[in-house]
Amino acid sequence: MIIGVPGETAEGETRVALTPPVAGELVEDGHDVCVAEGAGEGADWKDDEYREAGCEVLEGRLDVFDRSDVVLHVRGLGADEEASTDRYSEGQVVVGLLGPYGLDGELKELADRNVSAFALELIPRISRAQSMDAVSSMDSVSGYRAITMAANSLPKMFPMEMTAAGTVQPAEVFVLGAGVAGLKAIATSERLGASTVANDVRPEVREEVESLGAEFVSVGDETEEMSDEEGYATEQEKSFEQKQKEMLMEVVPEADVVITTAAIPGRPAPQPITDEMIERMDPGSVVIDLAAESGGNCEPSRAGETVEHGGVEVRGPTNLPATIPQTASYLYSNNIKNMLDLLISDGEMDIDTGDEILDSTLLTHDGEVRAPHREDQGEDE
Amino acid sequence: MIIGVPGETAEGETRVALTPPVAGELVEDGHDVCVAEGAGEGADWKDDEYREAGCEVLEGRLDVFDRSDVVLHVRGLGADEEASTDRYSEGQVVVGLLGPYGLDGELKELADRNVSAFALELIPRISRAQSMDAVSSMDSVSGYRAITMAANSLPKMFPMEMTAAGTVQPAEVFVLGAGVAGLKAIATSERLGASTVANDVRPEVREEVESLGAEFVSVGDETEEMSDEEGYATEQEKSFEQKQKEMLMEVVPEADVVITTAAIPGRPAPQPITDEMIERMDPGSVVIDLAAESGGNCEPSRAGETVEHGGVEVRGPTNLPATIPQTASYLYSNNIKNMLDLLISDGEMDIDTGDEILDSTLLTHDGEVRAPHREDQGEDE
Repeated sequence: MIIGVPGETAEGETRVALTPPVAGELVEDGHDVCVAEGAGEGADWKDDEYREAGCEVLEGRLDVFDRSDVVLHVRGLGADEEASTDRYSEGQVVVGLLGPYGLDGELKELADRNVSAFALELIPRISRAQSMDAVSSMDSVSGYRAITMAANSLPKMFPMEMTAAGTVQPAEVFVLGAGVAGLKAIATSERLGASTVANDVRPEVREEVESLGAEFVSVGDETEEMSDEEGYATEQEKSFEQKQKEMLMEVVPEADVVITTAAIPGRPAPQPITDEMIERMDPGSVVIDLAAESGGNCEPSRAGETVEHGGVEVRGPTNLPATIPQTASYLYSNNIKNMLDLLISDGEMDIDTGDEILDSTLLTHDGEVRAPHREDQGEDE
Repeated sequence: MIIGVPGETAEGETRVALTPPVAGELVEDGHDVCVAEGAGEGADWKDDEYREAGCEVLEGRLDVFDRSDVVLHVRGLGADEEASTDRYSEGQVVVGLLGPYGLDGELKELADRNVSAFALELIPRISRAQSMDAVSSMDSVSGYRAITMAANSLPKMFPMEMTAAGTVQPAEVFVLGAGVAGLKAIATSERLGASTVANDVRPEVREEVESLGAEFVSVGDETEEMSDEEGYATEQEKSFEQKQKEMLMEVVPEADVVITTAAIPGRPAPQPITDEMIERMDPGSVVIDLAAESGGNCEPSRAGETVEHGGVEVRGPTNLPATIPQTASYLYSNNIKNMLDLLISDGEMDIDTGDEILDSTLLTHDGEVRAPHREDQGEDE
């Protein structure tokens, strides 16, 4: 089987879908791996390192598309034009964070070309799938980076310090949303010695938050129905939202750092943090809105920008994993390798749509649009 | 007594010599405090906060010089022109990090005006002086910031992570020099979960390094004579330097992050880290040279710049405390307050040159140039 890595085209994307060590494992498994020149550059991997791992380095990225049975991406469909499907050919398999919620006509085109496209965003949250769960591994990197970014911007130190020149109080960090990114932000904030408070609409994460040393604040009105069967937060009722805003109006102004991570896959992010809450924070405080790409959890945040709002720095980074490309590519490559191990048996592609993981992630197959994420969302699509 | 804060003029200086809370304490002690408009802005303190603390806010900073018995600076002599003494008048007291090693003719001018100038750089390392030791408090802030800066630049995560997508190895951090800045860098690196190694020419700091969880590497040839009576490192012999370079040629290329902190007060920094050592580091690695201002511990570093050398980012920050102005100003204000408590008795200035702390820091007094730091350096000045 020929496995190809054409490299990424999105602006600022530094990750690579296969690092040389993982590519080398695939070569050892008997596959041919071809990589476009410079594909690993953003993550500091050189073409020679791919060659040493037994890969072929091709000059043009289109040659990688032409040659490969399986095309691996980090992000998007990976062609020159946004979400273009022109590069794919009959029977190809494509695996990556393909952005399924943003795809529409492209799915029909992929199906017409008989492409089997797997979107890693749709990996089910079951234990067998954890090793392929690229959303979780990337969220973990984002949560870490959100804290190092905040620590590097805040005009205060994070840890409490008892010094001869007086006691420095720890920074106060508030984390909204205790999913993978939120939990990693909490853990990193605690590591650095800040005083950390977190909230999530799912009361069952309280214990996990507290086990990291942070305080859990609740609206007092949460129910188990606030997470879906996969543990993702669901959209909430109006009355709850009101109570949540009251709680946030207490907590946010006290914080030196606010990290928000409340995104709902394929939906606009809830926006419980208002302009006014942020205006009440101390000048010099820092807000990092990890949901900025889907509209933001905070009124003033703008995707990909840093805005100043009432003396507070509000950042809306859209691709934090790309700012830690070595670790992110390492984890992502392992996710990809584990996914390929499930897809390939005895050296041959063997797509078993009865497998829950494959069934959940397979956007197009056998000439048909499957789009399993649309079923999830029911009739309002 | 009228105590004045004219604010800082150095480029990029965000710290303020007195925060409103500490200014308020001086007002409660019965002093008048006057502050130039906007003096606290860089550290997010507003003029109104000074007014609420009982200070007078003056429109022009020259009015602060004209009015005050004691003039407080963070850095330098604080006038518009570099190290200008024109603003000072008969009998004034000035306290700050005045940069004594760079002063020459200015000392004569200050003495002629009968100014008593205290340079906090010269605070002796005795326990009674710790609460006034602004060099230590600022070095501590620098050591912390060096790590958050490195963590925010490095393409790897700092902590070891055991994840479903594989084990992420911890970043390798090497710290050269285990003074206050080095020890804080080591502590912060360990907090963030990196694997930390440190070296210092003074073998007696091994225990302190190890108590922070880091590994101490030595040249194997150190003696107690390598620190002076105040615990500062002294200049070393050639043969030792050779052995040190051999050790560094082993350790530096293994590191993802190198933090260098080996400065000798008033002297050019030793430069044991060569171009070649840095070229052997992995691409994407980060070097932060805290000694850049006095020439740098690393051949490629340039004061105030970030240079790329062999794929490694080499930063030479010159004023890291100013990047954490709130904490740095809090600590510095407390240092200043403790120094004033020693200088003032019963509301009157009472300079006892028999006091070791005052004797060590007093550059000019009673019409004479004292320059105690010159005596320290003996006949080679």
